[in-house]
Amino acid sequence: MSDDLSHLTQLGRTTPLPASPEAAVLERVANPSPGRAYLVRFTCPEFTSLCPLTGQPDFAHIVLDYVPRDWIVESKSLKLYLASFRNEGAFHEACTMRIAERLVALLDPVWLRIGAYWYPRGGMPIDVFWQTGAPPDGVWVPPQDVPGYRGRG
Amino acid sequence: MSDDLSHLTQLGRTTPLPASPEAAVLERVANPSPGRAYLVRFTCPEFTSLCPLTGQPDFAHIVLDYVPRDWIVESKSLKLYLASFRNEGAFHEACTMRIAERLVALLDPVWLRIGAYWYPRGGMPIDVFWQTGAPPDGVWVPPQDVPGYRGRG
Amino acid sequence: MSDDLSHLTQLGRTTPLPASPEAAVLERVANPSPGRAYLVRFTCPEFTSLCPLTGQPDFAHIVLDYVPRDWIVESKSLKLYLASFRNEGAFHEACTMRIAERLVALLDPVWLRIGAYWYPRGGMPIDVFWQTGAPPDGVWVPPQDVPGYRGRG
Amino acid sequence: MSDDLSHLTQLGRTTPLPASPEAAVLERVANPSPGRAYLVRFTCPEFTSLCPLTGQPDFAHIVLDYVPRDWIVESKSLKLYLASFRNEGAFHEACTMRIAERLVALLDPVWLRIGAYWYPRGGMPIDVFWQTGAPPDGVWVPPQDVPGYRGRG
Amino acid sequence: MSDDLSHLTQLGRTTPLPASPEAAVLERVANPSPGRAYLVRFTCPEFTSLCPLTGQPDFAHIVLDYVPRDWIVESKSLKLYLASFRNEGAFHEACTMRIAERLVALLDPVWLRIGAYWYPRGGMPIDVFWQTGAPPDGVWVPPQDVPGYRGRG
Amino acid sequence: MSDDLSHLTQLGRTTPLPASPEAAVLERVANPSPGRAYLVRFTCPEFTSLCPLTGQPDFAHIVLDYVPRDWIVESKSLKLYLASFRNEGAFHEACTMRIAERLVALLDPVWLRIGAYWYPRGGMPIDVFWQTGAPPDGVWVPPQDVPGYRGRG
Amino acid sequence: MSDDLSHLTQLGRTTPLPASPEAAVLERVANPSPGRAYLVRFTCPEFTSLCPLTGQPDFAHIVLDYVPRDWIVESKSLKLYLASFRNEGAFHEACTMRIAERLVALLDPVWLRIGAYWYPRGGMPIDVFWQTGAPPDGVWVPPQDVPGYRGRG
Amino acid sequence: MSDDLSHLTQLGRTTPLPASPEAAVLERVANPSPGRAYLVRFTCPEFTSLCPLTGQPDFAHIVLDYVPRDWIVESKSLKLYLASFRNEGAFHEACTMRIAERLVALLDPVWLRIGAYWYPRGGMPIDVFWQTGAPPDGVWVPPQDVPGYRGRG
Amino acid sequence: MSDDLSHLTQLGRTTPLPASPEAAVLERVANPSPGRAYLVRFTCPEFTSLCPLTGQPDFAHIVLDYVPRDWIVESKSLKLYLASFRNEGAFHEACTMRIAERLVALLDPVWLRIGAYWYPRGGMPIDVFWQTGAPPDGVWVPPQDVPGYRGRG
Amino acid sequence: MSDDLSHLTQLGRTTPLPASPEAAVLERVANPSPGRAYLVRFTCPEFTSLCPLTGQPDFAHIVLDYVPRDWIVESKSLKLYLASFRNEGAFHEACTMRIAERLVALLDPVWLRIGAYWYPRGGMPIDVFWQTGAPPDGVWVPPQDVPGYRGRG
Ligand SMILES: [Ca+2]
Ligand SMILES: [Ca+2]
Ligand SMILES: [Ca+2]
Ligand SMILES: [Ca+2]
Ligand SMILES: [Ca+2]
Ligand SMILES: [Ca+2]
Ligand SMILES: [Ca+2]
Ligand SMILES: [Ca+2]
Ligand SMILES: [Ca+2]
Ligand SMILES: [Ca+2]
Ligand SMILES: [Ca+2]
Ligand SMILES: [Ca+2]
Ligand SMILES: [Ca+2]
Ligand SMILES: [Ca+2]
Ligand SMILES: [Ca+2]
Ligand SMILES: [Ca+2]
Repeated sequence: MSDDLSHLTQLGRTTPLPASPEAAVLERVANPSPGRAYLVRFTCPEFTSLCPLTGQPDFAHIVLDYVPRDWIVESKSLKLYLASFRNEGAFHEACTMRIAERLVALLDPVWLRIGAYWYPRGGMPIDVFWQTGAPPDGVWVPPQDVPGYRGRG
Repeated sequence: MSDDLSHLTQLGRTTPLPASPEAAVLERVANPSPGRAYLVRFTCPEFTSLCPLTGQPDFAHIVLDYVPRDWIVESKSLKLYLASFRNEGAFHEACTMRIAERLVALLDPVWLRIGAYWYPRGGMPIDVFWQTGAPPDGVWVPPQDVPGYRGRG
Repeated sequence: MSDDLSHLTQLGRTTPLPASPEAAVLERVANPSPGRAYLVRFTCPEFTSLCPLTGQPDFAHIVLDYVPRDWIVESKSLKLYLASFRNEGAFHEACTMRIAERLVALLDPVWLRIGAYWYPRGGMPIDVFWQTGAPPDGVWVPPQDVPGYRGRG
Repeated sequence: MSDDLSHLTQLGRTTPLPASPEAAVLERVANPSPGRAYLVRFTCPEFTSLCPLTGQPDFAHIVLDYVPRDWIVESKSLKLYLASFRNEGAFHEACTMRIAERLVALLDPVWLRIGAYWYPRGGMPIDVFWQTGAPPDGVWVPPQDVPGYRGRG
Repeated sequence: MSDDLSHLTQLGRTTPLPASPEAAVLERVANPSPGRAYLVRFTCPEFTSLCPLTGQPDFAHIVLDYVPRDWIVESKSLKLYLASFRNEGAFHEACTMRIAERLVALLDPVWLRIGAYWYPRGGMPIDVFWQTGAPPDGVWVPPQDVPGYRGRG
Repeated sequence: MSDDLSHLTQLGRTTPLPASPEAAVLERVANPSPGRAYLVRFTCPEFTSLCPLTGQPDFAHIVLDYVPRDWIVESKSLKLYLASFRNEGAFHEACTMRIAERLVALLDPVWLRIGAYWYPRGGMPIDVFWQTGAPPDGVWVPPQDVPGYRGRG
Repeated sequence: MSDDLSHLTQLGRTTPLPASPEAAVLERVANPSPGRAYLVRFTCPEFTSLCPLTGQPDFAHIVLDYVPRDWIVESKSLKLYLASFRNEGAFHEACTMRIAERLVALLDPVWLRIGAYWYPRGGMPIDVFWQTGAPPDGVWVPPQDVPGYRGRG
Repeated sequence: MSDDLSHLTQLGRTTPLPASPEAAVLERVANPSPGRAYLVRFTCPEFTSLCPLTGQPDFAHIVLDYVPRDWIVESKSLKLYLASFRNEGAFHEACTMRIAERLVALLDPVWLRIGAYWYPRGGMPIDVFWQTGAPPDGVWVPPQDVPGYRGRG
Repeated sequence: MSDDLSHLTQLGRTTPLPASPEAAVLERVANPSPGRAYLVRFTCPEFTSLCPLTGQPDFAHIVLDYVPRDWIVESKSLKLYLASFRNEGAFHEACTMRIAERLVALLDPVWLRIGAYWYPRGGMPIDVFWQTGAPPDGVWVPPQDVPGYRGRG
Repeated sequence: MSDDLSHLTQLGRTTPLPASPEAAVLERVANPSPGRAYLVRFTCPEFTSLCPLTGQPDFAHIVLDYVPRDWIVESKSLKLYLASFRNEGAFHEACTMRIAERLVALLDPVWLRIGAYWYPRGGMPIDVFWQTGAPPDGVWVPPQDVPGYRGRG
């Protein structure tokens, strides 16, 4: 499999945190099971960005599901890409869609969805859910099952 | 994005609690991803109104889901709108539907639903669930998963 | 709304516990949103009746869901109706169906279902689930999600 | 063991529900391990009485812990005694203490406690906790761990 | 028991929401078990006040535990007293202590504690815990066990 | 209803544990609501049999769902039937199917399913799920929601 | 370690289920860390015996904690010993104490306790808790934390 | 049933851990209910392999569901097969698919799916979900309901 | 209370994220209940810093408890102080202690403790717990009850 | 801090899995807060060893708590040390104590404890709990709160 990975620039190396999403290098490798409609789920409970108005930190729990076509995302580069939002100002909806759209552009997946569960501000959290369309027939897509926000008590 | 927000009267300013739902100014901004059928969920565990018969406080946990068309709701104005029921007498069913209908009128969304989970009175809570119709095809609508009431034990 | 409520005999008054389900006066009021297919859920964790064979108390957690047509049930009368089973001997299945059928007769709802989760006797609880038919299209019917019985441990 | 049980009037027989706590016959049998400071816990999630002011039903989840001295309570008679409150008007605090005191009088236990977890009325449940004194040294008394009330959400 | 209750002004009557904590009439009745060191717990998941700086609503889940001496609090008046903070501006710490101190003044209890679990603002909730001193010997004081705040995920 | 029950041999009598499933008398009574497609669920967390190879005890949590046609199972006889596997050697899959098939033969139900959740052996539990076919249209079939096995931690 | 185990009759062999607790051979091996006051916990969610009055099966979840002195119990023999109650008639309290006392006799432990959490009969489960005395100083004894019974809902 | 099992090489014998998945002998037996479309679920919370890049251990919780055609997998051989990955270097996606494909080859099932829930590395766990196609009509396939990863808090 | 707050530089103003913990201005106000030994708990599920070796983000859920003497911490400045670690390289133990020590220096509290629950790295999370000494007598200190890490399954 | 770490052989380098616990190099660094009695908790849900009798894999969830004196354990070396049991045959009790004793020898901590929660074998899991003595005064030692085993249901 080393042939497949030789073009990668970050895997197996110490890589600094990218300064911005634009600076992040999101990489892909060939789908090891190209004929199988399987689903890959990444769970990222460590997402943070900045509020574009106030510069204060925002936090989110993000779950990404996709069915690969020819490519799968290289997971270390995905981690660094998500971490690159650390100093980026971005609204919840725009930030969520931007992550999804970049992955769609990179991977041209059979199907993809993102669930972004933002920490509450002003007492009310916002969740954003998007998918590229109805899940393809015959693919198994378990619920993400992130608990709702309930305040206290 | 400041152009889009210049018409707003409350965002980024200290805004007093509106005296009633009628007095509340519910505002909207242009949908940043108008061609994407994504779902936005607001969770409000801090809803309170008054019983129209007794004047005693009522409480509810409210979850709002909608798929925007041209507009999204401005979240601070939504927060103030929901808070404006604080001194409003309203029955559970009517109160729930009124919130949903005002949002439908403001946003003309592709789809909207409301789940209102009222605190028990007389030992029995009432939940009210409404949606504008079946969810549109291909949109991802996760369950709200608010736990049922169980009394004690 | 007082006009709508003037025919009611129990709301806002001290009402004794009805001696039996037959003696209970189950009342209805006009559906405040007659054109909207919304669902109303009542959760009653305080149901009790008697075993018709032994006279020993039985207990159940009951959840009622319905989509109103022209009428909604008046909640205090529903509470009293359910409480009126307190001294009634009734088998689990018959008791559950009887409650549902009386509500159907009173309300002529678009759709109704009942979930009755009886406390275990002899180590095995019985649950009874009935609905008037498949849920109508486009109506949002969340799961009742009452946890299963698990014994100890 | 039949000798020990010959004085019992209810065990192994069909016994009607006692009409009141006074009418209930609470029975005891000799402690089978009189030299051992063990704790017996009864959990009763099926307790119900009436509100002495309104006659409406009240419900509670009750947990009884005791360390027997010479006697243990016969469990069927305890079940019937608790069920005998079904048509009894009693305030929460008084009702709870009355149960505990009758058991103390019957059993003269080394130690006893009662936790009564009442279903909410008016939005606020009341719990009542009483023990005859600090638990005796060297006796194992696990927490009752009944979850707190949390409203909705 | 009617003699004991004759001085009460709110129990069994329709009582409007007091305009402020000062206007609220917090009442007491004689302790029905004056020689017993039992604990009474009130759980109030429906507390709300206003932020004294911004006028925005604050919410809290409050649990009150006390061991009565000569008096117990009349529960309807307690409910109305807590509800009277609805339009009161008060900081979290001050508000919490004020409730506790008023109860101490009214009841002169053997012991009292308050746990106030405030909904998050700015991403961080504040909890306030106070008791009049170490719990008296031999009294059973179960943990309040209100879950911690966890954000999302 | 006594007419319907006069043919029963076990209900209301002291009945010894049957020596084997063959010896168990599984009884039925007329469906009290023959025109209603309701679902009856029995939860049995107390199932045990023997391993046919080693004679060691096996345990399972079993949930039975069925929609009756002309008959419902008499619950005491069901309890005894399930208990009759106590000294029976049976493989997990065969044991599960055997229970289901006997009930199908007895009741000729509209629909039936069985979920058998076996305790782990060798670190891996086996679950067996069977239904007589797709659930009939318009019948409400809640999920069984038995938690998966998770080992420790 | 084989020397220590050579006297064992069951470990590593196919052993039939003992016909009764008396017939069961409960074995011990030398404590491998005789100078260390550590606690060993066995959790047995698969305990079953018979009701001595009716012959019906009883079930319990049992947790055993002990601090060994010179011996530890051989776990396969413990498993067989517990399984040997399968056809034994025994009351809850007596059965629980009998298990504990046999282990005390076999092991002469520094300390031992048993928690027996019986499945409900007649709506009320019984738990039995016993320890040989206060836990020895400096030994770590985590709570058993078996959830209480809660009925349904 | 011994005839059916006579070809097996591992069941009922002490079998060493296979050195690799290739060395593992995965065995099958005739489907005992060949005409029934039932589902068998294996839950394996004890899966471990090695990272092919670093040689460090990886862990996963794996759930396998399948509907047998002519064969069922012999469970001890499945356990050994899964355990044989202990010293195998394998990427998450490839490892998951390899297990599923070997079972498909062995069993030619009506339908099969695998859910592999890998422990987090670098803060983000990967889940892999694959099924051979849409579940066959009329077969009951409960959700696997493995909780999502949530970090801390 | 405005007098007490006049020295504050951040409360009620838009304040940028401090560039480092040193740059953060942690402020205090006079204890409003100086004679009361109450406990204040701050829960911060939004803590993040950088790994000093790799520069990769670290995350933690932090809970701070303290009993004030003359001062309480101003909560907005605490929020900004915790947020100022965003670009700070710090080991888990050192980072945790540094936060605690700065608060001790600022507040000279009667008592303080910190619980830092770090997200797992390399499969194992680290928690750090420190308090200034045994809790003072008579103060109520509820457990923090942050769930342990459990991997998957 | 690099001076303190210069003697380390594994941190920041690619390190192969040690072949055995003896081969593993467990390293320590100077306690960064030597005068503070803080507690460090490591949670390892990824422990595995081999059964010394059968060679089959065993699994455990292990939690280590200690109060450092002059040294803290270097976490990567601890991870490798725990991973080195992968091919080691060891009984549950011996394996648990061996880990604890090696850490005591390395660190000479003020206090240390280990909780080892082994996956069930034969239906019963074993937990082993050991600490070096009573926790030192004034140190905060939260419970480990690993859930008990409950079988199924
Ligand atoms: Ca907030
Ligand atoms: Ca759910
Ligand atoms: Ca309940
Ligand atoms: Ca029962
Ligand atoms: Ca169980
Ligand atoms: Ca209520
Ligand atoms: Ca709440
Ligand atoms: Ca917030
Ligand atoms: Ca707790
Ligand atoms: Ca579910
Ligand atoms: Ca607990
Ligand atoms: Ca679920
Ligand atoms: Ca979290
Ligand atoms: Ca696990
Ligand atoms: Ca096992
Ligand atoms: Ca706990």
